[in-house]
Amino acid sequence: IEIKLRNIVYRSFHARAPTPDCSKGNISSVYTDRVLVHVKDLTEEKVGQVVWLRSRVHTSRAKGKQCFLVLRQQQFNVQGLVAVGDHVSKQMVKFAANINKESIVDVQGIVQKVDQKIESCSQQDVELHIERIYVISTAEPRLPLQLDDAVRPETGEEEGRATVNQDTRLDNRVIDLRTTTSQAIFRLQSGVCQLFRETLINKGFTEIQTPKIISAASEGGANVFTVSYFKTSAYLAQSPQLYKQMCICADFDKVFCIGPVFRAEDSNTHRHLTEFVGLDIEMAFNYHYHEVVTQITDTLVQIFKGLRDRYQTEIQTVGKQFPSEPFKFLEPTLILEYPEGVAMLKEAGVEMGDEEDLSTPNEKLLGRLVKEKYDTDFYVLDKYPLAVRPFYTMPDPHTKYSNSYDMFMRGEEILSGAQRIHDPQLLTDRALHLVTNGYKCVIISCLISSFQFLGLERVTMLYLGLHNVRQTSMFPRDPKRLTP
Amino acid sequence: IEIKLRNIVYRSFHARAPTPDCSKGNISSVYTDRVLVHVKDLTEEKVGQVVWLRSRVHTSRAKGKQCFLVLRQQQFNVQGLVAVGDHVSKQMVKFAANINKESIVDVQGIVQKVDQKIESCSQQDVELHIERIYVISTAEPRLPLQLDDAVRPETGEEEGRATVNQDTRLDNRVIDLRTTTSQAIFRLQSGVCQLFRETLINKGFTEIQTPKIISAASEGGANVFTVSYFKTSAYLAQSPQLYKQMCICADFDKVFCIGPVFRAEDSNTHRHLTEFVGLDIEMAFNYHYHEVVTQITDTLVQIFKGLRDRYQTEIQTVGKQFPSEPFKFLEPTLILEYPEGVAMLKEAGVEMGDEEDLSTPNEKLLGRLVKEKYDTDFYVLDKYPLAVRPFYTMPDPHTKYSNSYDMFMRGEEILSGAQRIHDPQLLTDRALHLVTNGYKCVIISCLISSFQFLGLERVTMLYLGLHNVRQTSMFPRDPKRLTP
Repeated sequence: IEIKLRNIVYRSFHARAPTPDCSKGNISSVYTDRVLVHVKDLTEEKVGQVVWLRSRVHTSRAKGKQCFLVLRQQQFNVQGLVAVGDHVSKQMVKFAANINKESIVDVQGIVQKVDQKIESCSQQDVELHIERIYVISTAEPRLPLQLDDAVRPETGEEEGRATVNQDTRLDNRVIDLRTTTSQAIFRLQSGVCQLFRETLINKGFTEIQTPKIISAASEGGANVFTVSYFKTSAYLAQSPQLYKQMCICADFDKVFCIGPVFRAEDSNTHRHLTEFVGLDIEMAFNYHYHEVVTQITDTLVQIFKGLRDRYQTEIQTVGKQFPSEPFKFLEPTLILEYPEGVAMLKEAGVEMGDEEDLSTPNEKLLGRLVKEKYDTDFYVLDKYPLAVRPFYTMPDPHTKYSNSYDMFMRGEEILSGAQRIHDPQLLTDRALHLVTNGYKCVIISCLISSFQFLGLERVTMLYLGLHNVRQTSMFPRDPKRLTP
Repeated sequence: IEIKLRNIVYRSFHARAPTPDCSKGNISSVYTDRVLVHVKDLTEEKVGQVVWLRSRVHTSRAKGKQCFLVLRQQQFNVQGLVAVGDHVSKQMVKFAANINKESIVDVQGIVQKVDQKIESCSQQDVELHIERIYVISTAEPRLPLQLDDAVRPETGEEEGRATVNQDTRLDNRVIDLRTTTSQAIFRLQSGVCQLFRETLINKGFTEIQTPKIISAASEGGANVFTVSYFKTSAYLAQSPQLYKQMCICADFDKVFCIGPVFRAEDSNTHRHLTEFVGLDIEMAFNYHYHEVVTQITDTLVQIFKGLRDRYQTEIQTVGKQFPSEPFKFLEPTLILEYPEGVAMLKEAGVEMGDEEDLSTPNEKLLGRLVKEKYDTDFYVLDKYPLAVRPFYTMPDPHTKYSNSYDMFMRGEEILSGAQRIHDPQLLTDRALHLVTNGYKCVIISCLISSFQFLGLERVTMLYLGLHNVRQTSMFPRDPKRLTP
C-alpha cells in the first residue's frame, strides 16, 4: 500500500521551479499540445522562433548576470543563454547555474543567430536565448565519469588532459553511451545491420532464425559454453553453420541470419569477445563458387556505400575523437590470388613458403601493401593453399590451391569462406563427426559455399578505424567481464 | 591423405547419364553459360521456349511410353512429361521413371500450354516437355516421410489419408522444411522481421544488440538457464528488458531488438518454447503513454498490411493445408478499455469481478466477442486493474486502473506493456532487487514505456491461424527437444 500511495504521488513530472519564471504543475496534463523540437533541427532557418526542447544539461557556466548552458541531445548540442532581462530574473540565472550536469530539462527560448561560430557545439550558427526552464529529472551531483573527458581525443592538441579508461567506461556504460562518439558508433552499427539485410532481401535471400541452445558442440567440443538444461546438459552455439546448411538442404536456397554466437575462449585481446553478433550467409550456387564470392563482396560494397552516403554525420562525429582515414573500397572488389599476395610479401622482405599460412602480422602488412598498390581497404584473398584449410574444403581441380578465400578490412580478416565438398558420403562422415547425439545426419546434396562473418562488432570497428572491439559492443562480454 | 584424394575425385558434379540423351561431363566447366529458369517463372508467356531448370523430383509416374514428373522448387511445382518421340528414347523414359523422389535434376524441355488446368501443381497452365535430364544428386530411395503426406490437410476431402505427426516432422526437419507449407511459413516469417524493422527504422528507431549471457537472472531467478562461465556461473537472458532500458537512459530514445530469449520453463504446451525470438521495442515518450501504444499498434498494422500485400502467395499456400479466415485488422486499431471488455464478457454469461484478471479461456472468448462486434482479429485491451499488474506499473491518476495494456491476435495475447514508474528512488530499489551481483544500478530518469512482444513464432502462428508454435519455429526447443 505504501508503494501504491507513493506511485500516485509520482504519477507525473513535477517541474522544480524555484522562481516565478517556471510555474509548478503536472506537465503531462497541462502541456499536451506543446511541440518539442530536436536539437539537430536548430539551424539558421529557425532564427527568431520561440521553441521548446527537452535535453540534457551537458555543461553550465555562470558569468555575472548570465549563465551559459550547453544542451545536449544524442549526437547534437546547442549553446543556451540565460541572461537577466525582461523575461529572466537574477534568481533564474542562479537556478540555471546550479542545475546538475546530465539533468534533463525542458526549456523555452528564442533561436538567435551568433556572430562567431560556436566551435564546441554541433549547432554552430545559432544559440538559444532561454526564457523558461523546468528540471524534468535531476542527475546526481557527482558522476562517475565526465562526458567531456570521455570524448577527448587521446592525441592532438588536447594531449595530456583527462581521458576515461575503458574499464571505467564499461562499468558506467549508461553514461558512457551518452557521449556523442558512442551515440554515433551505435547508430552506425544499426545501419550496418539494416544495410546487410536490405541488400540480401533485395537479392532474394530469406532471413532465418537458428537455435542458440544445441545438443552437441558445433565446432568439435573446444571453447564451448555448457548450459544446464533441465535434467541434462546442452551447449551454446558457436556458429549457426549447421543450421544454415540444413536450410540450404531444405531448399531455402539463399539464407542469412544475424544473431549471437558464443565462444568460450579465454583470450583477452582487442578483437576477441566471448559473445558477439554474427552476420551469416549461406547459399547454393549453380556452377562456380565465385557466384558466391561476388554476392558477398557486392553485399559488403553496398554496406560501405550506404554507410558513406547515409551515415556521414556519424563517421565525422567518431572521427573527432578517433581520427582515421576514410574507408576506401573498389568496384568491383579486388580479388587477389594467394600466390600474388605471397609475392607481394616476399618483395617486401618477408620470408615465407608458398603454401604457408599468413600470420596476423603478415595479414596486417599485406593490408598495407594492398592499400599502397590498389588504394583499397577491402579486398579478397582467394585460392588459399589446400594444406592450410579444413579437410572439407573443395580443392581447386588444377592446382595445389583450394576454392577458399578470406576477406579483409584494413588488414584484418572479417570473413573466411570456402566451397564445401558435396560428396554425400564424405559429408555424412563429417556431419556424424560434428553431431553425434542421437541426431540424424544431414546429407548435403547441393553445391554450397560456407562462410561466416567474423562479427558485427569487428566490421563496425574496422570500418571506423577503431582499435578495440569493446568500443563497438554496447555491453561486451569477455572472460573477465559479465556486467553490465 | 586418403581424404584429400577422395576430395579431388569429387571435385565437381558428374552427370549420371545412362542413355545417349544425356552426355557425361563436368557440368561446372562445360555449361557455365547455361541460364537456369525458376519454376515460378514457367507461365504462359514462356510457351514454346526451350528452358533449363534445376529442381527436385517431387513425384514420378510412368504410364506406357510416357513418364510424368512433378518438378518442385521451393513453394512452386510444375508437371514435366518425358514421352517417347524424336528426342526421347524408350530407355530415357525408363530412366526418368526410376529417379528417386527428392533427387535433384537438371532438365531441358519445351514449355507447352495444357488444355486442362493442372490442379495439383502451382503452375497450372503449362507443362514441360522434357528432352534432356541429368541427375545432379540422387536421394535415398526410402525417405523417413513423404512430402505429399506432409502437406495433406487433416480435414476435408482427404480426411483419413496418411499425415505426418509432429515429432516425425521435427526429427526429420530438413525434409519437412521442403514442403510448400513450410517454405511459405518461413518465408512469411522472414517478412515479419523485415516489416517490423522497416517500420521502426522509418520511425527513427535504432536497432540494438543486447547480451544473452548475463551475470544475474533478469526476472528474479525463476525459470532461468545457468551457464558455466570459465570459473564462475552466468545465466541466459530471459528478456532484453534491462538493456533496452539502459539504452533509453543512455539517450538512444527509441530502440528495438530482435533476438533469442530463453525460458527454463518446464511447460509442454502448444505455445511455449524454451528458446524463442523476441521482437522488442523500448522508447521514451514525452507526455502520455498512448504515444507509445500508437507507435506499437501502427507498427503491427504495417506488418499486417505488408504481409497481406507482399506475401499473398505464402498465405494461400499455407491455407491449402491449414485453412483459416484471413487475418482482419482495423485502422486505427481498436483500443478497448478493460471495463468494456469485462462488460462484454459478463453480457456473454461470464461471472467475474471488475478487477479480476482475464483467464486464458476468457481472453479467447473476448477475442471472439470482439471479432463479432468489431470485425477485427487485432485489438488492444487498455487500462488493466492496478491490482493485477506488477508493482512498478504506473497507476492511472484518477481510477483504480493502471497505464498498462495487452495486445491480442485471434484472442491470444502477443504483447504486454505498461508505463513504468519513473521515481528514481523506487526504481533504484527495483533495479537493486533485480540485479544484485556487484552491478551498479541504473537510474531511470525519463518517461518510459516497457513491453515485450511475446515472440516472432507466436505472431507468425496467430497471423496464419496455425495451432502450434512449433510449426513456426524452424528448430524448436522445448523441455523434451534439443535436436535437430
